[in-house]
Amino acid sequence: MRRKEFAVEDKQEIEKFLKEMTFGFLGTVGEDGWSRVTPLNFVYDGNYFYFHGSLAGEKMKHLAHDPRVSFTVAKEYAIIPSYFTDPVLACPASAFFKSVMVRGKVEKVEDLDEKASVFTLFMEKLQPEGGYQPITIDIPQYRGQLKAVSLCRIVPESITAKFKFGQNTNGEKFEGIVQGLQERNCPMDHETISLMKKYCPHHN
Amino acid sequence: MRRKEFAVEDKQEIEKFLKEMTFGFLGTVGEDGWSRVTPLNFVYDGNYFYFHGSLAGEKMKHLAHDPRVSFTVAKEYAIIPSYFTDPVLACPASAFFKSVMVRGKVEKVEDLDEKASVFTLFMEKLQPEGGYQPITIDIPQYRGQLKAVSLCRIVPESITAKFKFGQNTNGEKFEGIVQGLQERNCPMDHETISLMKKYCPHHN
Repeated sequence: MRRKEFAVEDKQEIEKFLKEMTFGFLGTVGEDGWSRVTPLNFVYDGNYFYFHGSLAGEKMKHLAHDPRVSFTVAKEYAIIPSYFTDPVLACPASAFFKSVMVRGKVEKVEDLDEKASVFTLFMEKLQPEGGYQPITIDIPQYRGQLKAVSLCRIVPESITAKFKFGQNTNGEKFEGIVQGLQERNCPMDHETISLMKKYCPHHN
Repeated sequence: MRRKEFAVEDKQEIEKFLKEMTFGFLGTVGEDGWSRVTPLNFVYDGNYFYFHGSLAGEKMKHLAHDPRVSFTVAKEYAIIPSYFTDPVLACPASAFFKSVMVRGKVEKVEDLDEKASVFTLFMEKLQPEGGYQPITIDIPQYRGQLKAVSLCRIVPESITAKFKFGQNTNGEKFEGIVQGLQERNCPMDHETISLMKKYCPHHN
């Protein structure tokens, strides 16, 4: 990462963010050299990133050609208008966000018991309230579906996180943004203030 | 696109979605063949997608090596739990979303007047309430900043949109999802119902 002040290395912080986020963007490369960016639901179990899909799609063709992928999860928290820090010039307008970028190789998961465990993780993430029969290969309908769907894992070679919450601003600008967010009071503005205070070095 | 029932070809619908969304995910490919997926703010003027950034980053190195990119904008509207349509099995759990995928080549924008116009579009999108001096090259501070920042446009070769709102469900399942969303009443659930009714063929 070019701007070191935005780097986050706390594994727990990164995992917490990845638990909250239901979808990310998979980058693959086709035989013709073109990339493709596919949005997809994912789970991260602390070791691997998992996603599923149909065998027939372009994404799977890309993966058969080259298993090297990138995977990015990002959330925008707040647009910071220029007038929070500058009464005249437009240029400081920006966005505060969290992003996690992964590089790794994709492997197919074929074992049916492992598939059942991973789809259980998907259900626990996307449907934490329950309301379904536990997924096991002993139930014929699940067994058939587990065979039919293709499940992949990304084996990460690197995971980097960038959380941008004004770490590059000085005291006066920082306070201007905090005050602006407080007054604007949009849905994520108060959470953004907490994150600014959490990640900005001169607030610790 | 593999599943034709989710394809959206109405240019106005696509542009409306792209206006609402402040950021997308750029796919580039490096000299080593690895892809990179970079989240970034963008504007679309009906012809080109624009983004800006620092000359020093990895993304720009990728673009110098190969100007062919993909760019994906996506929004998740609602997680549809399995029990909306199946009282027992977990497998139908899914997400309803809009996504737009672009393929194109990147060109650098060097002309300062054009840069000023495009940054004005960025400001109109991200800061529609105004509160800044109009951006022109006649103002020395803007002129300096316009020279320093690098601005790129994607010249699209294809734009495809996938809006998934239950177009593949039959009458009974469709009504089960509508009723489930109505009862759950989470922030985007009512908008999701409207979009289901808008895009599902048997409702038109």
